[in-house]
Amino acid sequence: MATEADEEAPPSSQPLLDGEQRLLLHGSASNTTSQVAIVGSNVCPIESLDYEIIENDFFKQNWRGHGKVQNLQYVFMKWTLCFFVGIFAGFTGFCNNLAIENIAGLKFVVTSNMMLERKYAAAFAVFAASNFVLLLFSSLITTFIAPAAAGSGIPEVKAYLNGVDAPGIFSLRTLVVKIVGSITAVSSSLHVGKAGPLVHTGACIASLLGQGGSKKYGITWRWIRFFNNDRDRCDLVTCGSAAGIAAAFRAPVGGVLFALEEMASWWTSALLWRSFFTTVVVAIVLRAMTDLCKSGKCGLFGKGGLIMFDVTSTNVIYHLVDVPPVLVLGVIGGILGSLYNFILEKVLRTYSFINRKGYAYRILLACSISILTSCCLFGLPWLAPCRPCPADATEACPTIGRSGNYKKFQCPPGHYNDLASLFFNTNDDAIRNLFSKGTDTEFHYISILVFFVASYFLGIFSYGVAAPSGLFMPAILTGASYGRLVGMLMGSHSNLNNGLFAVLGAASLLGGSMRMTVSLCVILLELTNNLLLLPMIMLVLLVSKTVADTFNQNIYDIIMKLKGFPYLEAHAEPYMRQLTVGDVVTGPLQCFNGIEKVRNIVHVLKTTGHHGFPVIDEPPVSYDPVLSGLVLRDHLIVLLKKKAFLSTPILTRSDVTKQFSANDFAKRGSTKYETIDNIEVTEEEMDMFIDLHPFTNASPYTVLETMSLAKALILFRKVGLRHLLVVPKTSTRSPVVGILTRHDFMPEHVLGLHPFLLESRQKKF
Amino acid sequence: MATEADEEAPPSSQPLLDGEQRLLLHGSASNTTSQVAIVGSNVCPIESLDYEIIENDFFKQNWRGHGKVQNLQYVFMKWTLCFFVGIFAGFTGFCNNLAIENIAGLKFVVTSNMMLERKYAAAFAVFAASNFVLLLFSSLITTFIAPAAAGSGIPEVKAYLNGVDAPGIFSLRTLVVKIVGSITAVSSSLHVGKAGPLVHTGACIASLLGQGGSKKYGITWRWIRFFNNDRDRCDLVTCGSAAGIAAAFRAPVGGVLFALEEMASWWTSALLWRSFFTTVVVAIVLRAMTDLCKSGKCGLFGKGGLIMFDVTSTNVIYHLVDVPPVLVLGVIGGILGSLYNFILEKVLRTYSFINRKGYAYRILLACSISILTSCCLFGLPWLAPCRPCPADATEACPTIGRSGNYKKFQCPPGHYNDLASLFFNTNDDAIRNLFSKGTDTEFHYISILVFFVASYFLGIFSYGVAAPSGLFMPAILTGASYGRLVGMLMGSHSNLNNGLFAVLGAASLLGGSMRMTVSLCVILLELTNNLLLLPMIMLVLLVSKTVADTFNQNIYDIIMKLKGFPYLEAHAEPYMRQLTVGDVVTGPLQCFNGIEKVRNIVHVLKTTGHHGFPVIDEPPVSYDPVLSGLVLRDHLIVLLKKKAFLSTPILTRSDVTKQFSANDFAKRGSTKYETIDNIEVTEEEMDMFIDLHPFTNASPYTVLETMSLAKALILFRKVGLRHLLVVPKTSTRSPVVGILTRHDFMPEHVLGLHPFLLESRQKKF
Repeated sequence: MATEADEEAPPSSQPLLDGEQRLLLHGSASNTTSQVAIVGSNVCPIESLDYEIIENDFFKQNWRGHGKVQNLQYVFMKWTLCFFVGIFAGFTGFCNNLAIENIAGLKFVVTSNMMLERKYAAAFAVFAASNFVLLLFSSLITTFIAPAAAGSGIPEVKAYLNGVDAPGIFSLRTLVVKIVGSITAVSSSLHVGKAGPLVHTGACIASLLGQGGSKKYGITWRWIRFFNNDRDRCDLVTCGSAAGIAAAFRAPVGGVLFALEEMASWWTSALLWRSFFTTVVVAIVLRAMTDLCKSGKCGLFGKGGLIMFDVTSTNVIYHLVDVPPVLVLGVIGGILGSLYNFILEKVLRTYSFINRKGYAYRILLACSISILTSCCLFGLPWLAPCRPCPADATEACPTIGRSGNYKKFQCPPGHYNDLASLFFNTNDDAIRNLFSKGTDTEFHYISILVFFVASYFLGIFSYGVAAPSGLFMPAILTGASYGRLVGMLMGSHSNLNNGLFAVLGAASLLGGSMRMTVSLCVILLELTNNLLLLPMIMLVLLVSKTVADTFNQNIYDIIMKLKGFPYLEAHAEPYMRQLTVGDVVTGPLQCFNGIEKVRNIVHVLKTTGHHGFPVIDEPPVSYDPVLSGLVLRDHLIVLLKKKAFLSTPILTRSDVTKQFSANDFAKRGSTKYETIDNIEVTEEEMDMFIDLHPFTNASPYTVLETMSLAKALILFRKVGLRHLLVVPKTSTRSPVVGILTRHDFMPEHVLGLHPFLLESRQKKF
Repeated sequence: MATEADEEAPPSSQPLLDGEQRLLLHGSASNTTSQVAIVGSNVCPIESLDYEIIENDFFKQNWRGHGKVQNLQYVFMKWTLCFFVGIFAGFTGFCNNLAIENIAGLKFVVTSNMMLERKYAAAFAVFAASNFVLLLFSSLITTFIAPAAAGSGIPEVKAYLNGVDAPGIFSLRTLVVKIVGSITAVSSSLHVGKAGPLVHTGACIASLLGQGGSKKYGITWRWIRFFNNDRDRCDLVTCGSAAGIAAAFRAPVGGVLFALEEMASWWTSALLWRSFFTTVVVAIVLRAMTDLCKSGKCGLFGKGGLIMFDVTSTNVIYHLVDVPPVLVLGVIGGILGSLYNFILEKVLRTYSFINRKGYAYRILLACSISILTSCCLFGLPWLAPCRPCPADATEACPTIGRSGNYKKFQCPPGHYNDLASLFFNTNDDAIRNLFSKGTDTEFHYISILVFFVASYFLGIFSYGVAAPSGLFMPAILTGASYGRLVGMLMGSHSNLNNGLFAVLGAASLLGGSMRMTVSLCVILLELTNNLLLLPMIMLVLLVSKTVADTFNQNIYDIIMKLKGFPYLEAHAEPYMRQLTVGDVVTGPLQCFNGIEKVRNIVHVLKTTGHHGFPVIDEPPVSYDPVLSGLVLRDHLIVLLKKKAFLSTPILTRSDVTKQFSANDFAKRGSTKYETIDNIEVTEEEMDMFIDLHPFTNASPYTVLETMSLAKALILFRKVGLRHLLVVPKTSTRSPVVGILTRHDFMPEHVLGLHPFLLESRQKKF
C-alpha cells in the first residue's frame, strides 16, 4: 500500500531512497516510512530525539537531592557553553575568511601577473589547475573522511532541531572536514558560499561542547559533561546555528532571527536570550580579530572579506515613485527563486544518482564541475570589450592586484574589462563591486546579463557536489546582478542608485529561494549597514516570497524531503482531521509487566526496533490492569548491563535504585550506545526478574483513541515528543492500545494506510 | 487555606484584590484563585480564551463543505486585516505625534514668549494651568468613559495573548479614550510615554477589525466578520501590538521582535510573517505622512517628533578599552532598573488604594501629580546658572522657539540654561538633546544629575494615575541622563562621545526595568539608525538584565501580578513535579449524558460558572460509560435558544444540525454573549431532551490522573487550552475524574491546596 501511495504522490515528495536501503535498520516492519535518510552524501539510519521530561521515581529522587548549588551550576554551565560556542564560532568564521582571502587571493595575484605578461594560456593553466586541486582535495576529504560534511548542512541541522538525529552530523570528524573542505571549496572559485557550512560548523561546535567533547578521539572534558538529555543539547545547537550566521555575515541580530525563523522547531524566551548572548560574543570576537588584522599582518586579508559591505553611509532618499520598480524586482525574484529551487531539485536528483554509483563517480563529478567553472570564469570575460577607465574613478583603474573594481585582465593600460571584475574575483569582491555606489557606469548591461546567466546556472550546478557548499552566496551574487540590471534599465527614472538595486535584487532572490522574511531582512541590513533601506527590503521580500510560495516550497525543505528526513510540520494536513489516532496505529504492541522476566525483555529488545515500551501492572501486582508508564530501551539496556535482577517477582523499590547514579542513564549526544547484542545474560539470569517501576516514566503523554490525528499531531509537535501513548475509550480493554511515533504522523505513512485520502486530496486541490 | 497561603506568600505575588471582589463572579467556589482582575483602573471579571480547535461533528461537516474558494478567502482576509491594522496603527501613531507636537509646542511657544517679556509668574501660571487642564481632561475621560484605558495597556494585552480575556479592554470606547487620553496626558508634560498606549491602541484596532467592528455602537461590517474563534483574533492582536511599537518608534523589525519576545505566548512562523507585513505597512504609512508634512503644513510638527533620533551618521569607532565603562553602565542600569520596579510597585499599591476609594480621589491624584510635575519642570531650571553660548554651536543659541538644544529660559541674550533644555521641552526633544553628538560641553554635570533624579522619580510617580501612560519614554529619558553623566565622568578616557553614552544609558535602564533583550536592542538601533552600536547595546542589555534579574521580575510581570491576571508561565515551578494532576483537581464534576434532559442542562448552567462539561454516554446508549467529549457552555446556550429539542431520548444525528449554521456557534471577540438567564424554556420543554453528540468536541485533550502537574502544565500552555480532561488510571471508575482549567495551574491555587510545598520551597530558596 505504501509503495502504491509513493507512486501516486508527486515526485517532489518522494525521497531518494529505495527499498533495499530501507532495510538497513532491523525491525519496524509495520511502519512503512523510511528509517534512513541521506546525511551529507551518504545514506544513514536515523533516530528520533526525545524532548520529553522523563519523570520516573529514580530521577525524581535525584532531583530532590539537587540543591541551590547544583541549579546555579547548571545555569552557569549553560551560559558558559554558549560563551564558548560564540568564541569558537567567531574564531572559525574569521579564520575561514582569512584563509579564503589568502588562498584565493594568492591564486588571483599569480594569474593576474601572468596575464600582465600576456601569458594567457599559462595563466589559465595555473588558474584551472589550482581550482582543480583545491576542489579535488575538498571532495576527497569529504568523501572518504566525513560524508556528512557534504552540502550546506542547514537541512541536517534543521532536521536535528526538529527531532531527527543522524549519526555523524555533529562528530569531530565532520567538524574538521566541514571547516577545511569549505575553505578549499570556496577558494577553488566554485560557485558556493560559506554561510551554510558555517551554520553547520556552529551547530557542530555546540553539539560537541554540549556532549563534553568527542569520546571517539578521547578528547573529552568531564566538567562540561553536564547535559544529559536532548533538550539542553537542542538548545545549544540552536545557539550554535545562530552563531554560524552571525559569523558568516557579522549579523548578530540576523543570526538569532535566522535560527528562530528557519532552523528551530521549538523556541523559548530564555533561548532567545542565550542565542542572543552567543551572537554578541561572535560579533565581539570578529571585531577584535579584524582590529588585529588592521595592522596588515594578515596577508591578503585586506578589508576583511565578506565581513561588511558598507554600501553607503549617506542617507538613502526614496519616495513612493520608487515602489513600482521594487515590486517588479520582487516578482522577478519570486519567479527566478522558485525556478531556482525547481531546477536545483532536478539537478540534485541527478547528482544523487551519480554520487550513489561509487566514490569514483563522486570525485569525477566534482572535478568536472571544477573544470567547467574555471572555463566559465576565465573564458567568459573575453567576450567583453575593453572599456576605457572613467576619468573620475575613485579607485585605481585598472586594478592590477587582487581586489578592486576595475580588473585589467587582457586589456591595454588605461582600460578595464567589466566582466572580469565580476568573474575573475572572489565571490565577496564581486558582491562588493555589484553593491558599490557611484559606479553606475562601470558595467555594461550585456556584461551584467552574461554574468547573471552564468552565475544562476553555476550556482545550481555547483551545489550538489560532494564538498561543503552553501547556497547564500550564489543567490546573493545572482540576485545582485539582475537587481543591478533592473537599476540600469530604470536609469534616471528612479532615485535609487544601482548599488541599492543590487541589494534589493539579492534580497528578492534570497526571498524567492529561501523564503525567510524577517531574518533575511535583518541580515541584509546588517550586511549593508543601512537601516533606511528597511521598508524597501521588506517590501521586496514580501513580494518575492508570496510569488514564489505559489509555485513550490523553500529550498531547504525541498532538500530535506529529498534526503528523506521525517520532518514534522507544525501544522496538520487537512485530511488528518478526518482520521482518529486509532486509524493510524499499526503493528502489534509490545508491553512489559511492572515486574518483568529478564528473558522477555531480552527477547523483545532483540526482536524489535522500538525505543519505548508501555509498562502495565497486571494482577497480582494490582487489582486491574493499570498503565504504569513508559520505559525506554536505553534504560532497559542499562538495567540489563548492571544486572539489577530480582530472583522473585516482588516489589522492592528503594534498594534497587542505589546501585545506579543519574550518570548511568544519561543520554549523551551522538556517542554510540550499548546495543542489546553486546550484553551477555546467562541462562540462569534469564529466569530472574526486573522491577521496572522505579525506571518507568510515570507521566507519559496520552491521547484517547478517538482523538483526531490532527490534534494529536499538534500535541506531539508542540511538546516535542518521541512516543505518544494511545489509551482506549472504553474500559474493558487493555489500558494502552498503541504507541504513536514521529513516523506515524508522516503524510506518506498516513496516505499509505488510507489511499482514498490521497485521491480526495488530489481531487480537491 | 488559600488565605493562609496568601498571607505567607511574599507581598509581590499578592494581587490587589480582596475577598469581596472575588465574589463578583458567581459559582466556582471550589477554586480559590481570583476570577477578577484590575483592568486599567477598574476591577472586572475575567475569562479564559480557548485556542483549541473544536472538532465536533457539526463543524466537521461544515469544514468538508469548505472548498478552495473559502480557504483562499480566509487567507486573503487575514492579510487584508493585517494590512488595515498597519494602515490604522500607522495613521494613529502619526496623528498622535502630530497632535502632541502641536499642543505641547503651542504651550511652550506661549510660555517662552512670556518668559522673553520677563513675565515669569504669568508664564508659570499658563504653563501649570494648561498642564492641569490637559491632564484633568485625560483623567476625566479615562475615569468616566473607559477605565480600561488607564495605564500602559501592555500588561492587559500581554494577559490577553496569554489567554485571559477581560471585558472592555478592546472596545471602541477604550480605543478612542486611549488615543485622546494619551495625546492629552503626554501634552500635559506629564512624565509618561506614548509607546505603551500605542501598543494597546494597535491591539484594540486589531481586535475591533477581527470581530468586524463594534456591535454595541452598530458599527459593524459583515464582510470582515470572518474570524469566529479566539485563535485567529489572538494572532491579529499580536500583529496589532507589533504595529503599536512600530508606530511609536518607527521600528518595524523592533516591533515584530517586541511582540515576539514580550507579548506573545504562542508564535508560529506564519504569524512572524504576517506581523512583519503589518509593521512594514506601518513604516510606509509613517514615511508617507512625514513626507506630506515636510512642506510645513503640519504646524509645529517640525522634525517629526520621536520618529527618528539620528544620533550620528558617521562611523562609530570603539575598541576594547571602551568595554569597562559599558559594563559599568550595565551594572548601574540593572540596579537602577530593579529599584525602579521595586519602588513603582509600592507606588502602584498606594495609588491603587487611593484609586479604589472613589472617582474623586482618582481625579485628585491626577491633579496633584500634574501640579507637582509643573512645579518641577518650571522650578528646577532656576537652580542652574546661565551659561554663555559656545562659539562653535551648530544650532542657534539661545533658542527662542520651542525646540532646539539651547533654551534661553530666564537667561540674558547670548546665554542659555542647560537645565531648561532638558526640563522645559517635550520629552522627545529632551531625548534628542541628550542623544545628540557634538554637544559634550553643553550640559554641566550637576544639571544632568538634577535632571536624572527628578526624571527618575517623576517617572515613577506619574505612571499610576488614571490616564493612559507609557513606561518607555521616562525610562529612556532617565537612562539617557545618567548615561551621559557616566560619559562626562569618563571624559577623554573613552572613544565614545556623550551622545552615545546617553544611548547606552537608555538601553541599560530599559534592560534593567523591562528585561527585554533582542527587541530593545533592535528598537534602539532603529531609533538611532546606527548598526555599528550593536555589540555595545547588546553588551549593556545583557549585563543590566542579568543584574536586575537577581533582584526582581520585569515591570510588566510585576504589574500583571499586581492586577491579578492569572498569567500562565511557560515553565512549571519545580514543586509541580512532585504533584499529580489528581492532587489539584477540585470540586464536584458536572457531566452530561450524550442525550441529556433540558431541565438538567438549564439547572447546571444556572448553578455553576463552568464553561466546559464532559459528555459521557451511559447505558442504554452505550454498553459501558464512554467519554464522548466536551461540550461548551456557549454552544449549550445556542442549543437552548434555538430549542433543538427531542421529545424522546433517541439518537437522531443528521437532521438536528440542519437547523444551525456555523455562524450560530461563532465566538465573536468581546461582544457580550447570551447568558442562561435570558433564555426562556417552558415547563413542557424542560422535560424534553437534547442530543449533544453533534455539538460535542470529540477530541478533547486528556491526561491520566497520575500525570505530573508540571507536564500537564506544559501541555496546557503549549497547546493553548482552556479545559483539560483528567481521565482515570483504572477502568472501574467514571471515564472522567476532573477538569483542569487555567486557575488550577496558578501557583497560588496549588500552594493553597498544599501549603507544605510553600514551606519546603521557602526552605530551599
